[in-house]
Amino acid sequence: MSERGPVRGGKGLLRGRFSGEVHPALDRINRSLPVDIRLWREDVDGSIAHAQMLAARRILPAAAVRRIVAGLKKVRRELEAGTFVVKPSDEDVHMAVERRLTELVGPDGGRVHTGRSRNDQVASDVRLFLHRLPDQVTPALRGVQRALVRLARRDGDAILPAYTHLQRGQPVLLGHHLLAYVEMLDRDERRLAAACRDFPWPLGAGAATGAAYPVDRVRTARALGGRGAEPSRNSLDSVSSRDQLTQWVAGAAQAAVTLSRLGEDLVLWTTREFGFARLGDAVSTGSSIMPQKRNPDGAELLRGKTARVIGALNTLLTLQKGLPLGYNKDLQEDKAAFFDALDTLLAMLAVAEAMLGDLRFDRARMRAAVDDPTGFLLATEAADWLAKRGVPFREAHRAVGALVQAAEERGVALEALPLDVFRQAHPRYDRTVYRALTPEAAVAARGAIGGTAPKNVAKELARWEATLGLARRARRARKR
Amino acid sequence: MSERGPVRGGKGLLRGRFSGEVHPALDRINRSLPVDIRLWREDVDGSIAHAQMLAARRILPAAAVRRIVAGLKKVRRELEAGTFVVKPSDEDVHMAVERRLTELVGPDGGRVHTGRSRNDQVASDVRLFLHRLPDQVTPALRGVQRALVRLARRDGDAILPAYTHLQRGQPVLLGHHLLAYVEMLDRDERRLAAACRDFPWPLGAGAATGAAYPVDRVRTARALGGRGAEPSRNSLDSVSSRDQLTQWVAGAAQAAVTLSRLGEDLVLWTTREFGFARLGDAVSTGSSIMPQKRNPDGAELLRGKTARVIGALNTLLTLQKGLPLGYNKDLQEDKAAFFDALDTLLAMLAVAEAMLGDLRFDRARMRAAVDDPTGFLLATEAADWLAKRGVPFREAHRAVGALVQAAEERGVALEALPLDVFRQAHPRYDRTVYRALTPEAAVAARGAIGGTAPKNVAKELARWEATLGLARRARRARKR
Amino acid sequence: MSERGPVRGGKGLLRGRFSGEVHPALDRINRSLPVDIRLWREDVDGSIAHAQMLAARRILPAAAVRRIVAGLKKVRRELEAGTFVVKPSDEDVHMAVERRLTELVGPDGGRVHTGRSRNDQVASDVRLFLHRLPDQVTPALRGVQRALVRLARRDGDAILPAYTHLQRGQPVLLGHHLLAYVEMLDRDERRLAAACRDFPWPLGAGAATGAAYPVDRVRTARALGGRGAEPSRNSLDSVSSRDQLTQWVAGAAQAAVTLSRLGEDLVLWTTREFGFARLGDAVSTGSSIMPQKRNPDGAELLRGKTARVIGALNTLLTLQKGLPLGYNKDLQEDKAAFFDALDTLLAMLAVAEAMLGDLRFDRARMRAAVDDPTGFLLATEAADWLAKRGVPFREAHRAVGALVQAAEERGVALEALPLDVFRQAHPRYDRTVYRALTPEAAVAARGAIGGTAPKNVAKELARWEATLGLARRARRARKR
Amino acid sequence: MSERGPVRGGKGLLRGRFSGEVHPALDRINRSLPVDIRLWREDVDGSIAHAQMLAARRILPAAAVRRIVAGLKKVRRELEAGTFVVKPSDEDVHMAVERRLTELVGPDGGRVHTGRSRNDQVASDVRLFLHRLPDQVTPALRGVQRALVRLARRDGDAILPAYTHLQRGQPVLLGHHLLAYVEMLDRDERRLAAACRDFPWPLGAGAATGAAYPVDRVRTARALGGRGAEPSRNSLDSVSSRDQLTQWVAGAAQAAVTLSRLGEDLVLWTTREFGFARLGDAVSTGSSIMPQKRNPDGAELLRGKTARVIGALNTLLTLQKGLPLGYNKDLQEDKAAFFDALDTLLAMLAVAEAMLGDLRFDRARMRAAVDDPTGFLLATEAADWLAKRGVPFREAHRAVGALVQAAEERGVALEALPLDVFRQAHPRYDRTVYRALTPEAAVAARGAIGGTAPKNVAKELARWEATLGLARRARRARKR
Repeated sequence: MSERGPVRGGKGLLRGRFSGEVHPALDRINRSLPVDIRLWREDVDGSIAHAQMLAARRILPAAAVRRIVAGLKKVRRELEAGTFVVKPSDEDVHMAVERRLTELVGPDGGRVHTGRSRNDQVASDVRLFLHRLPDQVTPALRGVQRALVRLARRDGDAILPAYTHLQRGQPVLLGHHLLAYVEMLDRDERRLAAACRDFPWPLGAGAATGAAYPVDRVRTARALGGRGAEPSRNSLDSVSSRDQLTQWVAGAAQAAVTLSRLGEDLVLWTTREFGFARLGDAVSTGSSIMPQKRNPDGAELLRGKTARVIGALNTLLTLQKGLPLGYNKDLQEDKAAFFDALDTLLAMLAVAEAMLGDLRFDRARMRAAVDDPTGFLLATEAADWLAKRGVPFREAHRAVGALVQAAEERGVALEALPLDVFRQAHPRYDRTVYRALTPEAAVAARGAIGGTAPKNVAKELARWEATLGLARRARRARKR
Repeated sequence: MSERGPVRGGKGLLRGRFSGEVHPALDRINRSLPVDIRLWREDVDGSIAHAQMLAARRILPAAAVRRIVAGLKKVRRELEAGTFVVKPSDEDVHMAVERRLTELVGPDGGRVHTGRSRNDQVASDVRLFLHRLPDQVTPALRGVQRALVRLARRDGDAILPAYTHLQRGQPVLLGHHLLAYVEMLDRDERRLAAACRDFPWPLGAGAATGAAYPVDRVRTARALGGRGAEPSRNSLDSVSSRDQLTQWVAGAAQAAVTLSRLGEDLVLWTTREFGFARLGDAVSTGSSIMPQKRNPDGAELLRGKTARVIGALNTLLTLQKGLPLGYNKDLQEDKAAFFDALDTLLAMLAVAEAMLGDLRFDRARMRAAVDDPTGFLLATEAADWLAKRGVPFREAHRAVGALVQAAEERGVALEALPLDVFRQAHPRYDRTVYRALTPEAAVAARGAIGGTAPKNVAKELARWEATLGLARRARRARKR
Repeated sequence: MSERGPVRGGKGLLRGRFSGEVHPALDRINRSLPVDIRLWREDVDGSIAHAQMLAARRILPAAAVRRIVAGLKKVRRELEAGTFVVKPSDEDVHMAVERRLTELVGPDGGRVHTGRSRNDQVASDVRLFLHRLPDQVTPALRGVQRALVRLARRDGDAILPAYTHLQRGQPVLLGHHLLAYVEMLDRDERRLAAACRDFPWPLGAGAATGAAYPVDRVRTARALGGRGAEPSRNSLDSVSSRDQLTQWVAGAAQAAVTLSRLGEDLVLWTTREFGFARLGDAVSTGSSIMPQKRNPDGAELLRGKTARVIGALNTLLTLQKGLPLGYNKDLQEDKAAFFDALDTLLAMLAVAEAMLGDLRFDRARMRAAVDDPTGFLLATEAADWLAKRGVPFREAHRAVGALVQAAEERGVALEALPLDVFRQAHPRYDRTVYRALTPEAAVAARGAIGGTAPKNVAKELARWEATLGLARRARRARKR
Repeated sequence: MSERGPVRGGKGLLRGRFSGEVHPALDRINRSLPVDIRLWREDVDGSIAHAQMLAARRILPAAAVRRIVAGLKKVRRELEAGTFVVKPSDEDVHMAVERRLTELVGPDGGRVHTGRSRNDQVASDVRLFLHRLPDQVTPALRGVQRALVRLARRDGDAILPAYTHLQRGQPVLLGHHLLAYVEMLDRDERRLAAACRDFPWPLGAGAATGAAYPVDRVRTARALGGRGAEPSRNSLDSVSSRDQLTQWVAGAAQAAVTLSRLGEDLVLWTTREFGFARLGDAVSTGSSIMPQKRNPDGAELLRGKTARVIGALNTLLTLQKGLPLGYNKDLQEDKAAFFDALDTLLAMLAVAEAMLGDLRFDRARMRAAVDDPTGFLLATEAADWLAKRGVPFREAHRAVGALVQAAEERGVALEALPLDVFRQAHPRYDRTVYRALTPEAAVAARGAIGGTAPKNVAKELARWEATLGLARRARRARKR
């Protein structure tokens, strides 16, 4: 069989009726192999499932299918081993696999395409890739969560300012701050995982209107998706929808946003001005000019790469917009955007885990920020003290506004003001207010669910350690 | 109490410590009332739930809470009746409601703010809005689905070409084409509904670090979210995350994309060139210049408005990017983007339903497109005929490529070629091939799940009629 | 003439051939008046220019045109005075103006539409709006530049750290930092202004294929666009292109990005941690919970609103994508995106100017950051000292790396290290190195164009004062 | 000199002070070489210009600079020949070039970095790339314009319907339709070219605050940018702004949008339903299932790839948002987005030119669409006929609305209605109206500038042929 034989040209370029070669400009823009080759595992596995179904339904003879499956397994081994040679005629991954299969098993190779088309095949490959994707992504997300939980275990009892508007607001436990990201990443994980399940399986939907063979689509759906997997109910929808992929990339964009916020916190914390943390040498970078620099490049790229994932989501949605029903070639662009979002997210997760794993906190600097007399971090406590004694909060708020002004004028902290100044601001104040005006009292006061009180944070920390499989290790660590 | 008393200025502008007025440029950019006033129902209901919890926990006296709740109900009635008067001091909806409440019930009005802040309050209002949103959105989506199903019931047995690459591909039932959109919208509905449930409730999370009162957050979460609702576990996360809103808008963008595709199909079908459908007068528009025009403006706007929803999603993600933890004012922009996406989607759904409801199909034009001898819609059948007889599909494909060329040269349809031409293309052909070469045979052949065979489409149609509550009506209709 | 007479329905809805009313869902999504009413000035002026041309070309009688122009001027006065009453039949601004004109001058009102269509009319209105837009936008941009230059004049000689990666890098003059934004805004201004000129004028291009009257398009182009204005050369292009608007919004997005960066700097500078600046009361906001807060809401919104402008650009591009030639209704969405971008940018510019106008710098805090022994801001000087003496920069860089380590270990600044430590790091060092190791020497050393040397900054400042009309005032201020 | 000597690690990773290796996750995300290697030509040329300036200013000895320049030229030859070997230590293109240079010329290689930093170097490389970019992009755009003009010359006198809302509107010359794209592409070209000139040159701005050497920045600016090139005036701006790149990508996004519209027209024209054109074999693609298919994949990808360029623009803007002044690592992401936009646009231009070059029009199908009695393409003529006789256009429009209804009822074209029907619709009609009711009369009537009258289109065509260098060839062709 000649090398440019029956498989020449691939899906878009089956040139049977056409005279001459395809124009190189079209070939270049049309060729999807460099991108979709990443689906080779799914393509081979999908073909095996399809072939076995064809045998079970006696659409193909069992013997031919045995040869086909053996051939596909050999193709898989070659791809795994990196010995698979791509040919110029391989327009896409499907064509590459089938071309090689036909080389290995002869004309039977072409029969695996019975009862399916490239349109349902690629849709199916992508679904299978999504189905397996949590195995890659969830551990990467969990890795960042674990790194955060470990830091919370180690230094979570340190007190630092909680910021709103990047202004110091109230004292908060470092553990509380870190666990906020663990919560955010947990929702990110659920959102990404949800995009990888409960979708209908398209294999066997044909090019547009369904397969012209009595294919057993329940069987192939379950062979690929496991028990409970269901075939799609409409062939036109099956081959022309990209919502599942978009849902995943939307989840990835939100997860990237979470990491970008963590990146911003790392950038801020490691400035000289905040000084709350210091990155280890392995995760710091220098400058070609300024020899003293210790730059948090990785944290900055957590922000910058987020723009890339948002751009990919934007591309995916924009390319689907206004397409008429049925497969349109525009949809081929979906995979480049998807893989770019995936690779970027994975690189971000890896660098986030690495940076958190090599981070030292400066507890003294945090505490100094809390105790800074010009910060008035305890102003809320002074207002709450009144409110708890029946003063409407608005009135208490105003009274403390006056206290803050008085303290600013004297250049002292609130708690350093004498009682008569308190009384001037509000007659309800008495000496016991000073007891409320310590960072420890402030955090302890936030004892309701979700608050930063040490008992809450400890409970949450333990819960997360259990969830993330850190419990035993943590318990051992505490014993030491 | 003076009208510009303790409540002057609202969250951002509580001007206790500040001398003078806020700069008008800042006031203008900062004021969120024109947007967030839409949350008034949720703000009032959230305040009632919060006040009742404060009484149950004896944080406020029961009598005060009774007055507060009565006052809030009066505020709600005023807002419902449109008699509520916004004051210049009402910076946001929370301030407006509380200001009015205080006017009605006196200083107790200020006490409803005990144990919460505007940061958790707005997060809670938005969650309650989301929680109730399916009541608005799902019926609107279902309305479009019903309109599609009704058309499928009425004209679903018509045969038209299925298109790929906007080139005629294979015969398909109109019902199959219409039900593809029903499937797509169903996933859109699920995606949007999923964004409206199973989230943690933020009320009581305070401004940043938790409430300094023994608030019962499980109680308020369930008062608002129903049985099973859970309070959020981390206050910092609660007040500074917008992922839930983003998830909804991502779902809305995908739903808009679905509608944009339907819009494109409507635009194409109602051209003179396709001529498959005609819009009723009520959903057609004219031209100021060309008196003959019957323009599908609504369908075009299904495309155009999609760009707006995608833009809103983009805005939402971009504004969160790189914000440090804790509330930042940037997040205020979330609501403008969200409401714009919501309003746009609802307007699109309404117009889609209206246009489908006033659409007449031209079955003769569809059939003519199928029968057009230059379209070769049955070419796949000729190839399948061979393949079913053991010819590798690739070989069959090439044979039919030759047949198509022969037919093109003679200017006839495939099925009009004499048998010897078939035999020349492939020796396996015999006379029975002609039986496969009719549109009816072609659609009937797609009998596997998801295919366009009439029996399949009928089953799917019945399933959707049952799901959408159209079953009885449909049965009655058939009896007549 | 009945009120719902010939003008009923507007462009899209001229219901001559259609029976019954338009569906309310279509009417709602189709009606553009709430957005395009902002073009009333341009619509009236465009109609006057068009009418006068019709008279000059004797397409309409001079007397009729006199009546029309008088009527249009009356419409303009009504719109200016706010006495213009919109009718439900006014689908868009063109319809509203023409309807009112016809009420005022009778059937002649309808004749102004001779030789044009709504398609070229709206394109022309938008061009005229763009043509006039620099009058609004340039002063707003210049206002921010002036505020920056005034600050540079007042405190520009203060030294603070220049940051890269938000890590302290080298000493820099505050004036240099502030003037960087002046440069950026200058390019933004040029980019926005370039989008407002040198475009072809579409008036008279008709609905699609050109006007069927001998209209003098050069005359109307110049009446609207001034000497040198040229009519567009292709009618199809004229009515279906939106690139000019997109170019402006792209410029606006970049200008917003510039402001977002300024906003970030303001947020950072006004933190307790940096403490380089303090916002005045009028541009600060408080917290409903934390009485001590002085929040930079305006600066944060400079970031947040940027997301909105980027979203608008995204919408504009996405809605044009894939539209076939000729006017499509999707294009109606262009104006909502454009006006939203414009309003947002203007609000941002106003708040930026206000905040800069009420900003006090803390020169002592800046200096302390420069002098902070742990910052090693002079490390580059130590390396440059070697390099200037022929040591390859890479080698010098390494030597100073060692010096920084030594200083870190001793907890002192570089300049506090004894000479022998310098010599150990590199034998080329001698006593004169200490002269280079002061912030003053460091800034003075950057004397090449664009560097932060005081003489450079003074020259740039003077240049900008002259450009921005601040020169005389500045000179006077210096004399005092 | 050891291979991992002084140049180890590159800009971000100059590991002088740091112990141990950089973490692989950071290295992976940080390494920009695979992207920025494309700047090698600019990097080498920039270094040569910089080195020669250093000699002229006697900052480096002339002999050393001669060696450096000779070395750089050798590096360039290696890169051109593809023999340049990238080392693992080459973090970015600057590092790769300098590392190789140092291998070739010894320690002098390190001295080329005197008076500049990587921050101004990369900014300068990008500017030089932009400066040269029109040489690549303009011919590609012109190629598409030429292909359009050639088609217009060949078949431009064919008449087809002009569409608005994808409904047939009025007769138009094919040449007019094609030249609309030529106009659009011309503005695209100007916009892209404008982004490539008149910017300030950053070389010599240093890492942040300027060069500490008496560098002659005017000289290097002119060496790179030609006469009139000016150095930038502010070092902080120079190293941290990306507006020039963004401006180019914004222009690319608009150009892609133009091509996406051309793609849509090609998709529509090559449908069986429109049938106005047929793609040659070399630019058509087949289907793996449907042997009759002739798919316009390239045209579809003109739409789909546009989404990618819009996504890249979105990424660029989003990544800059909210960055504080001074270089931040986020900015490294700019190049991936830029190059992706560039490559995508070039691929799109190539395929557009190829497809237009192999397109045959079906003039008969076009004419049939014009003559189709159900299309009423001449309705505007019937209204204009009245309007030209003094009937207000609104009244004429209504009259023709009635005519259209009458013709629809009889199933004939307007021009086939008897005169009394015309008279019933409007008493002003007389027999001469029939003369206006031909497609030829309709196009001839649009004689004002920009209209589709044959004399206009001929003039425009000639103008474009002259502009695009097709004039002589065209003249010769006409003679034959």
